[in-house]
Amino acid sequence: MKILFLNGPNLNLLGQREPAVYGHTTLADIEAMVRERSTKLGVGIEFRQSNLEGELVNWIQDAKGKFEVIVINAAGYTHTSVVLRDAIVAVGVPTIEIHISNVHAREEFRHVSLIAPVCRGQIVGFGANSYVLAVEAAVIVNGSK
Amino acid sequence: MKILFLNGPNLNLLGQREPAVYGHTTLADIEAMVRERSTKLGVGIEFRQSNLEGELVNWIQDAKGKFEVIVINAAGYTHTSVVLRDAIVAVGVPTIEIHISNVHAREEFRHVSLIAPVCRGQIVGFGANSYVLAVEAAVIVNGSK
Amino acid sequence: MKILFLNGPNLNLLGQREPAVYGHTTLADIEAMVRERSTKLGVGIEFRQSNLEGELVNWIQDAKGKFEVIVINAAGYTHTSVVLRDAIVAVGVPTIEIHISNVHAREEFRHVSLIAPVCRGQIVGFGANSYVLAVEAAVIVNGSK
Amino acid sequence: MKILFLNGPNLNLLGQREPAVYGHTTLADIEAMVRERSTKLGVGIEFRQSNLEGELVNWIQDAKGKFEVIVINAAGYTHTSVVLRDAIVAVGVPTIEIHISNVHAREEFRHVSLIAPVCRGQIVGFGANSYVLAVEAAVIVNGSK
Amino acid sequence: MKILFLNGPNLNLLGQREPAVYGHTTLADIEAMVRERSTKLGVGIEFRQSNLEGELVNWIQDAKGKFEVIVINAAGYTHTSVVLRDAIVAVGVPTIEIHISNVHAREEFRHVSLIAPVCRGQIVGFGANSYVLAVEAAVIVNGSK
Amino acid sequence: MKILFLNGPNLNLLGQREPAVYGHTTLADIEAMVRERSTKLGVGIEFRQSNLEGELVNWIQDAKGKFEVIVINAAGYTHTSVVLRDAIVAVGVPTIEIHISNVHAREEFRHVSLIAPVCRGQIVGFGANSYVLAVEAAVIVNGSK
Amino acid sequence: MKILFLNGPNLNLLGQREPAVYGHTTLADIEAMVRERSTKLGVGIEFRQSNLEGELVNWIQDAKGKFEVIVINAAGYTHTSVVLRDAIVAVGVPTIEIHISNVHAREEFRHVSLIAPVCRGQIVGFGANSYVLAVEAAVIVNGSK
Amino acid sequence: MKILFLNGPNLNLLGQREPAVYGHTTLADIEAMVRERSTKLGVGIEFRQSNLEGELVNWIQDAKGKFEVIVINAAGYTHTSVVLRDAIVAVGVPTIEIHISNVHAREEFRHVSLIAPVCRGQIVGFGANSYVLAVEAAVIVNGSK
Amino acid sequence: MKILFLNGPNLNLLGQREPAVYGHTTLADIEAMVRERSTKLGVGIEFRQSNLEGELVNWIQDAKGKFEVIVINAAGYTHTSVVLRDAIVAVGVPTIEIHISNVHAREEFRHVSLIAPVCRGQIVGFGANSYVLAVEAAVIVNGSK
Amino acid sequence: MKILFLNGPNLNLLGQREPAVYGHTTLADIEAMVRERSTKLGVGIEFRQSNLEGELVNWIQDAKGKFEVIVINAAGYTHTSVVLRDAIVAVGVPTIEIHISNVHAREEFRHVSLIAPVCRGQIVGFGANSYVLAVEAAVIVNGSK
Amino acid sequence: MKILFLNGPNLNLLGQREPAVYGHTTLADIEAMVRERSTKLGVGIEFRQSNLEGELVNWIQDAKGKFEVIVINAAGYTHTSVVLRDAIVAVGVPTIEIHISNVHAREEFRHVSLIAPVCRGQIVGFGANSYVLAVEAAVIVNGSK
Amino acid sequence: MKILFLNGPNLNLLGQREPAVYGHTTLADIEAMVRERSTKLGVGIEFRQSNLEGELVNWIQDAKGKFEVIVINAAGYTHTSVVLRDAIVAVGVPTIEIHISNVHAREEFRHVSLIAPVCRGQIVGFGANSYVLAVEAAVIVNGSK
Repeated sequence: MKILFLNGPNLNLLGQREPAVYGHTTLADIEAMVRERSTKLGVGIEFRQSNLEGELVNWIQDAKGKFEVIVINAAGYTHTSVVLRDAIVAVGVPTIEIHISNVHAREEFRHVSLIAPVCRGQIVGFGANSYVLAVEAAVIVNGSK
Repeated sequence: MKILFLNGPNLNLLGQREPAVYGHTTLADIEAMVRERSTKLGVGIEFRQSNLEGELVNWIQDAKGKFEVIVINAAGYTHTSVVLRDAIVAVGVPTIEIHISNVHAREEFRHVSLIAPVCRGQIVGFGANSYVLAVEAAVIVNGSK
Repeated sequence: MKILFLNGPNLNLLGQREPAVYGHTTLADIEAMVRERSTKLGVGIEFRQSNLEGELVNWIQDAKGKFEVIVINAAGYTHTSVVLRDAIVAVGVPTIEIHISNVHAREEFRHVSLIAPVCRGQIVGFGANSYVLAVEAAVIVNGSK
Repeated sequence: MKILFLNGPNLNLLGQREPAVYGHTTLADIEAMVRERSTKLGVGIEFRQSNLEGELVNWIQDAKGKFEVIVINAAGYTHTSVVLRDAIVAVGVPTIEIHISNVHAREEFRHVSLIAPVCRGQIVGFGANSYVLAVEAAVIVNGSK
Repeated sequence: MKILFLNGPNLNLLGQREPAVYGHTTLADIEAMVRERSTKLGVGIEFRQSNLEGELVNWIQDAKGKFEVIVINAAGYTHTSVVLRDAIVAVGVPTIEIHISNVHAREEFRHVSLIAPVCRGQIVGFGANSYVLAVEAAVIVNGSK
Repeated sequence: MKILFLNGPNLNLLGQREPAVYGHTTLADIEAMVRERSTKLGVGIEFRQSNLEGELVNWIQDAKGKFEVIVINAAGYTHTSVVLRDAIVAVGVPTIEIHISNVHAREEFRHVSLIAPVCRGQIVGFGANSYVLAVEAAVIVNGSK
Repeated sequence: MKILFLNGPNLNLLGQREPAVYGHTTLADIEAMVRERSTKLGVGIEFRQSNLEGELVNWIQDAKGKFEVIVINAAGYTHTSVVLRDAIVAVGVPTIEIHISNVHAREEFRHVSLIAPVCRGQIVGFGANSYVLAVEAAVIVNGSK
Repeated sequence: MKILFLNGPNLNLLGQREPAVYGHTTLADIEAMVRERSTKLGVGIEFRQSNLEGELVNWIQDAKGKFEVIVINAAGYTHTSVVLRDAIVAVGVPTIEIHISNVHAREEFRHVSLIAPVCRGQIVGFGANSYVLAVEAAVIVNGSK
Repeated sequence: MKILFLNGPNLNLLGQREPAVYGHTTLADIEAMVRERSTKLGVGIEFRQSNLEGELVNWIQDAKGKFEVIVINAAGYTHTSVVLRDAIVAVGVPTIEIHISNVHAREEFRHVSLIAPVCRGQIVGFGANSYVLAVEAAVIVNGSK
Repeated sequence: MKILFLNGPNLNLLGQREPAVYGHTTLADIEAMVRERSTKLGVGIEFRQSNLEGELVNWIQDAKGKFEVIVINAAGYTHTSVVLRDAIVAVGVPTIEIHISNVHAREEFRHVSLIAPVCRGQIVGFGANSYVLAVEAAVIVNGSK
Repeated sequence: MKILFLNGPNLNLLGQREPAVYGHTTLADIEAMVRERSTKLGVGIEFRQSNLEGELVNWIQDAKGKFEVIVINAAGYTHTSVVLRDAIVAVGVPTIEIHISNVHAREEFRHVSLIAPVCRGQIVGFGANSYVLAVEAAVIVNGSK
Repeated sequence: MKILFLNGPNLNLLGQREPAVYGHTTLADIEAMVRERSTKLGVGIEFRQSNLEGELVNWIQDAKGKFEVIVINAAGYTHTSVVLRDAIVAVGVPTIEIHISNVHAREEFRHVSLIAPVCRGQIVGFGANSYVLAVEAAVIVNGSK
């Protein structure tokens, strides 16, 4: 079983970006945490980040047949991208939406996710640990197919 | 460390209630799953269900000093209860919001949660496993205090 | 065949409560009218009233297997209660929504019913006779199952 | 006592029109059912159908002094016609609004009725039997004048 | 003359609940302040608190004939309860709405009160002293009947 | 110079229709008043009434080349008819909108007129005299072409 | 009988202000036209203009007992002034609202008038002649008291 | 194969009606263009126009069994008619919506079509050629049944 | 300690203005009532009224250093004036908002107060006694600084 | 004459993507159909697809002087992209908007097109044949320049 | 060339008013800064402040023929004044809107400016330097006439 | 000190794109104007343009430590891009928003800027000179850090 972790725009700045909101952990740190947990569970992962909406779409399209589950932190595109939503539906790979911060406690436009209705579930607000919880969740989702 | 699991209205019907949406697992099954996982992690739990908004408020108030984390599936009250929100803020016990189904893929009024902004995070859409993931999340939340 | 009549908050004050809107008939008078009609039709009834949302939920849950049809005047909860809606769906007993006054001719917030979409039908605005008409309607609904 | 039954646009197609929503009963069948019940109650009826908004207005205007109660299924005009509303108020004949399907469980624009606030009451969702229940309701409304 | 003071959900936590918003005075302290002022004015009081919407409805219903004025701090139910509104109208006892904090300076959903239109007046934002001012206001309201 | 007076649905009931709102003057009385004033001003008039939206459209279309000005009281169609608006624009005959009652003091849906933006002006709220004032206004509009 | 004509802000610029919208007639020209018509009808008039909301309020208050009818072109205050509305209601002098341009064919915020519901009627869109028609309308309004 | 072309209100004025928007082609010209193209494709057509909503409903109802496809330019009724929508669904004849002008570049109320969701497709903005393209589209729709 | 009482537009008409809403007490009567109560409490007052928004702003600005508390009945400006709100914040003198009538039981636009969020509290609906209660409230507010 | 066909995100998945909505035809199949029809009409075409909003903008900019007409299926960007709209206006090449599915029968956010007001027309809902009809439409648009 | 600087309500308090938002510079300081820059550029200025909406209107009207450009900080009237907007359009003197604070980062009602659409441009958020930048902008605007 | 000028989509077409809105100056002309002014002020600049949202994000991220101020004309992305907003906050380089045209005088969707709340200020509507003014503004912003 393999999981594709997709990280949207500005997540490459984690650790230095608004630490009061996003914490001091870098994206590399998070990848290490995810890798450690997934190794324990015997699951392979791939970890990517892009600032381009279209590149994220490309990667979702490529996931078909190569990954059992997608975990996506779409960052700012979460609230505006019909295109990511369409890609998730088009490829049919079960997808989990995650966020580092509790988006529901922030600006009102962050309360709406265009991809939420086409994902299996959401894990929101547990900081870097949202990613670690997502590894377990992905195993569950994969098992329930 | 002790976790209080609160279950809102109609969750006592799990297993027989709209199985296409909520699955065939009963609330007792879920409690067993939660107990198994929490025992492994050396964490105590208490599991309660009520159809009364006021009784849920009472239980949140009682949690102070007795539980480190509250995990709440507020069911139908999620979308209408200012009172549960106020209770969570008033007692200050870190709280995690969970849902069995992916509420974002259902009726529009289920997309808004009045308690989300005052919880630490949300785990949504993983069926009965939302509860199991919440045990891990609770340990994380407790560790980050 | 048995019908469960559920009366929501403040309906215990009928007869003395805003007679210009609700008339001078008391809830006991209405129960008598309902009983007379249902006896004629060979149908059993049970008549309950509560001011607590959770108690109404409990009663809806209890109806399963004991009553063929629920007739509910949810009063003020009609416009705010996701919980009653969920209960009606969860138990699957065919339900008829009734109102004494013509809610569509009153304040705007009374024009929306959260339970209407999950009931079989509505009988609205015929005063105490909304209950009597509901006995006939319940027999029809039961016959068409 | 005489009741005028007015049927709005497309109701002449009943029986063949979307049977999943409206059933297999034709408008002629319904008229027969209504006639049977009204004969039992010693009440005269007249039954008309038109696809023209203005013709329905004409018939409402003509009802004055000839009918004690109007029962109207305004179909698609229910949600858009200020003109029918004005006619009902202008003639002052007590009017009952009925629908075959549960309009509250369908498209959102069907949840609003422009004529509801000026009718005495509504009977909604009981299929062809909405008409039969309306005969009884009309007798009640006439008695309470 | 007797005044019934009704306190809604979470007000039993006053003193320890969000002191920056609600201050350090407990509900018992407030009751003492109210009692002192009302004694001076020769007025009897009764002081109750409940987390249950339905129990508050019960108490409003019981007030008829026993109390001249109701003073209610409906807390979180202020913004969502049609049922409390209906109860106040149904019993006809003049009612005063009070709040400890300035609700208009807080979250937007706290700016709307469902009970305000059926109360005589509002006293908002004076901390524990909102209760004391309400004693005087109740005497005025009672005198102007 | 000739003026076409068009009267929309239910205006044929004037005099008996809601006299508190529309007064006791009949449409025939109004026609006489209009005829008297227009005779004085040396202006010809034609006076028509219909309950059918399409017939009003027909009459507007026919006005081209036969009438210099149209005066229209579109009654209930004022608030819903794109079709009347399109007809007025299509024929290009200057049109004046009138109302007997002050529509801005009535239900909110009467505050919006779909034809107002394509008329030259409005005369609203002067009872039967709105028609008389419109004769003068029509002469002015015709003179300013 | 005396009529008070009140002109709101920027109307002193008529003749030079946006002639495409407001024409080339100055406010002095309009006053002359009004005076000519009112003299014919044996009616006295007074004509005032101010850019200050509060001064217009003062003049409305002063009208009581001195003028039988107020004719007001509130210009930009039409759409924002609760204060003018309250003044009109407070003094009880019948008031007619007029506009030079067809406000319904302009920006959307000009479609709403806060004073319309408390005026007797409106005359809108006839250029300077809106004032002349208002003289006749004022006589009618005065006669129907 | 036969196609029914339905033309809504004011389309009989084409050629003289707002030529900047609708062009100089008359409805007769368009019928000739349509007839030429359909003859080439071996398809029969019928071409009708009415200003009455109810007559358009009648014609849609009559199409059943006589026409394979309906092409409708509902003109002003496009944006307001639930009744046309219901008729299209009721008869089940595949229907294509067309417009001469680009409705999305005009007033906001023209951006919403009540019939669009129940038609097979839309052809909008190609002037008189929208009709000609619709002949081809009708053949495609008929072939894909 | 000195309190500045500011009265907005049309309050100078109290006693003769809509007595059903505002009562028969004049503003002079109210000033006398306030003076009596404040004398008892050893507090100085100043009482002003203006119909001009800008003059009320001037007075608020002047209050700095001369008055400990402002009590303002902004009347019609309550619902529209950003400028009064800014003035209250700019000078920093604690301010209490009062209203004679229960604004929440009147037109919807009166339910919103632009100054409420920047005042300490509100006293609403107690008729002329709202002013008297405000004297006590001002003393409390001053004591809690 | 040359036509540029632009295909937005996820259209490269046609044939395997949600066949119930989009059919089994691949984008290559569609290109072949388009090429066949355009060859018959003596028109050159170019066919491109991209998942990147910015690349679509680049291609629209490049069209100037090389293509007479653009046909665009902007897919998910249809509903969110101001940037595509601006590009279409900036280059001034006549543009036709097409969609495979009937977007008006799907989720509400698909009912709004940001590019529709700046295109010449729309062809929507005819499956792969929307592209073929667009070839004919492009010839018409080019001829009417 | 002469520039008229208009300052709206409460700007006379600059320096002492909410220094966290508006800084410590007084209006006199700003006038000195503006005068220094305009002297360098050979431009005359006049600097005025008023708390009265009507006086600002008067000053805008007076600017015609005396000033080449108006620079206005309308403060709280920015968001509510149709009257200032009308004055700017009526006199036709090119106008620049400025703000000291970044209004888009403050309360939502400050995000809308009624005068923005009729001004040439806006300079917002640069503190006292918004005024200095406006001198340069005014020279540019004057040069481009 | 160095300033990064970022230009969003379609700005590379300046000079030929809608000259009535954007003028005849090309982006190269503007860069020359900016360079001339910044050279005078001893400030370095870099000038970039991209049609890709993600590339603009990349450039904002790269600015950290290399540029003291960013000046951004985000063009069409201004109104839709959460991602640019997040990037500006994440890097913490002070940013100024500029526009060539007065966006507040154009389509309504151009009135909202998602990046405005996180920029220091805005300069809008001065044509190519918005860029030149931004050089001065950038120096001011840099000096006030």
